[in-house]
Amino acid sequence: MKAMGPIPAGFGSVAGELVIEGKPASHWVAQAGGTPLFVYDAAMLTARVAQLRRAMPDRLAIHYAMKANPFAPLLAHMAGLVDGFDVASAGELQMAMGAGVAASRISFAGPGKSDAELEAAISASVTLNLESAGELRRALQVADRIGKSPRLAIRVNPDFDLKGSGMKMGGGAKPFGIDAETVPPLVQEIIAAGAEWRGFHIFAGSQALSADSVIETQRETVALAVRLAEAADAPLPHCNIGGGFGIPYFPGDAPLDVDAVGAALGETLAGLSDVYADTQFAIELGRWLVGEAGVYLTRVLDVKQSHGETFVVVDGGLHHQLAASGNFGTVVRRNYPVAVANRMDEAASGAPQSIVGRLCTPIDRLADKVSLPMMQEGDLVAIFCAGAYGASASPAEFLGHGPAHEVLVAG
Amino acid sequence: MKAMGPIPAGFGSVAGELVIEGKPASHWVAQAGGTPLFVYDAAMLTARVAQLRRAMPDRLAIHYAMKANPFAPLLAHMAGLVDGFDVASAGELQMAMGAGVAASRISFAGPGKSDAELEAAISASVTLNLESAGELRRALQVADRIGKSPRLAIRVNPDFDLKGSGMKMGGGAKPFGIDAETVPPLVQEIIAAGAEWRGFHIFAGSQALSADSVIETQRETVALAVRLAEAADAPLPHCNIGGGFGIPYFPGDAPLDVDAVGAALGETLAGLSDVYADTQFAIELGRWLVGEAGVYLTRVLDVKQSHGETFVVVDGGLHHQLAASGNFGTVVRRNYPVAVANRMDEAASGAPQSIVGRLCTPIDRLADKVSLPMMQEGDLVAIFCAGAYGASASPAEFLGHGPAHEVLVAG
Repeated sequence: MKAMGPIPAGFGSVAGELVIEGKPASHWVAQAGGTPLFVYDAAMLTARVAQLRRAMPDRLAIHYAMKANPFAPLLAHMAGLVDGFDVASAGELQMAMGAGVAASRISFAGPGKSDAELEAAISASVTLNLESAGELRRALQVADRIGKSPRLAIRVNPDFDLKGSGMKMGGGAKPFGIDAETVPPLVQEIIAAGAEWRGFHIFAGSQALSADSVIETQRETVALAVRLAEAADAPLPHCNIGGGFGIPYFPGDAPLDVDAVGAALGETLAGLSDVYADTQFAIELGRWLVGEAGVYLTRVLDVKQSHGETFVVVDGGLHHQLAASGNFGTVVRRNYPVAVANRMDEAASGAPQSIVGRLCTPIDRLADKVSLPMMQEGDLVAIFCAGAYGASASPAEFLGHGPAHEVLVAG
Repeated sequence: MKAMGPIPAGFGSVAGELVIEGKPASHWVAQAGGTPLFVYDAAMLTARVAQLRRAMPDRLAIHYAMKANPFAPLLAHMAGLVDGFDVASAGELQMAMGAGVAASRISFAGPGKSDAELEAAISASVTLNLESAGELRRALQVADRIGKSPRLAIRVNPDFDLKGSGMKMGGGAKPFGIDAETVPPLVQEIIAAGAEWRGFHIFAGSQALSADSVIETQRETVALAVRLAEAADAPLPHCNIGGGFGIPYFPGDAPLDVDAVGAALGETLAGLSDVYADTQFAIELGRWLVGEAGVYLTRVLDVKQSHGETFVVVDGGLHHQLAASGNFGTVVRRNYPVAVANRMDEAASGAPQSIVGRLCTPIDRLADKVSLPMMQEGDLVAIFCAGAYGASASPAEFLGHGPAHEVLVAG
């Protein structure tokens, strides 16, 4: 038997069935036209942003990193909650603007921006987080060609990383951003070129659950931004301090203490000199904002025995939930939180069951030897923590079953 | 510096530029309208099937497992070369029939077939490879409901695996097929139900490069099929012996000796009793048929230094070539064969370069610290072995850049 991650807070059951936003899971399946289905709970998104605002200093802007989940209705909902959107491609820029986000609230980071993408961003007056000296040169060329002043920030590759983060994005040689020590002359070049200088974007890692690590990284991030601004003798109109807040996916994981993080960040910002009184600090979160608000529902097609083991075959799979199969940046496969949505009151059977996707490949395993109520054909499996890096981060066309349904539900 | 896999045979260069099907790579990029681009070489596909036919016994049918690459023009080309198609979903079934493959030449395997899929297959008179006793029951119910006799084979979970294979699909508890010892009564049940009995499908593993392993597995597979037919006191009209032929992806890999495999299989089949004189044996290959015929071409957007390391940022990434990034069923990331398509005559620079995709995630690395000619903006990178499990097995929508171009080229 192998353990599963913890089911996120906020999900209950009525008459033995999982409830999402006040209605049984089967209600949403019927409404969406079937399984597999991603359900995103709008009220949980709203509550999450509110929780963050309570925890964080008043002056901190909240940005949504839409790479986590670009489902159009979810984007429109988030647009009404957060202060800014961070995009990573011209495609995402278009989706953000389609969701009603004003260009002035959008910034664009990504190590491989094409000239066409630079042009789209500059035309729309979106802030570009520059990833290299070469990109600065190209951005200025594009701006010159189209006769528009660009809004430019620098993404800094910090000299530290986010301890305990799932994915390190700073510290040492990295493809992201510009090494800190080479930043000051580029700032001066941006200002001298007559571009609108927007400040820094510093992203040190992601998926951290330790408040101490996040607090330390945020302190270092703010200090680095100040140090670089001073070294460049430049103002600091804006500073995106990155994100990195993790959510509990796996056995033993516990939620990040955002109140502690917010209190410490408040102290850090309060300790800044008056020079930075008007600096707009922002935090950029994707997974933490949307991850726990999503549930992937998939129907049991078959239950079979093989050499004494029980395999539950569902109508979904890694083509929708690659990360849950352990094939997206994880070294050791562990189990996401999973439940049998129509047997929430039943005890576990005692015998381990493995939940496998319908794809004809051995890596399509959504839960490995877990302890759950005994399943049968027609049961509905719920895989939690499906709101981020699920539908859009999976190979939906693989084996020809096509994408899952998706729905944003509001009570 | 880290090694790369071997560039497949059949690719040359003219005037320093990679040639595909007689034309420089840049020709195909211009014709397709840009990068990133998957180019599939039709002549290499044709030659590959011909090589296989020469190597294999005359009586062996060749099936294409279309999950490896479902690009429509490639399917149409393969339809003219092989004897059958193996599909894994109703979506693939539709694509195969759209490519002109007759239903009688199609078989359908997959552990999670829905009732709708069973109905589609039975209606079209496609052979179903049954994966469980439950699926047999459902197939008979569907057939009864629509008043059509189904064509049924049994996918067997063999008691052995393919030694040294990249992915084991048999041996021990598995979600695929029906445990060998429980097969005979099900065969009798199929025949008693009046369905058309088609025989066995036995698939023990994939991506094996050792001829000895493949030979041993094929011997065991044929022997198992005979043993099960005898135990069931049933004829053996058809036997799909699976595939498992690997291609060299990584440093040290060498091509599978298919001549040795074919000779040994010829002996195995010649040694069968006359009872099996009319049994149609088939081999089912995906990756081996199409993998080496594909090249992924991606343009360099930026070259940057970070803490002494060189990062080459391209306009492609893991959203098109997930497997090359090491995030698709591999434990240790290794380098695919890669070349700079417009610098084929240049010596390696001596300094390691890492090729990263344009996605804003540290796992988007297509080549790690490789020795290649020094690259610059505008160069064209070729990643080989991109014909199988590339475009269709990658999360094309992740981060909003969208899918790559694809083209099948013929001289």
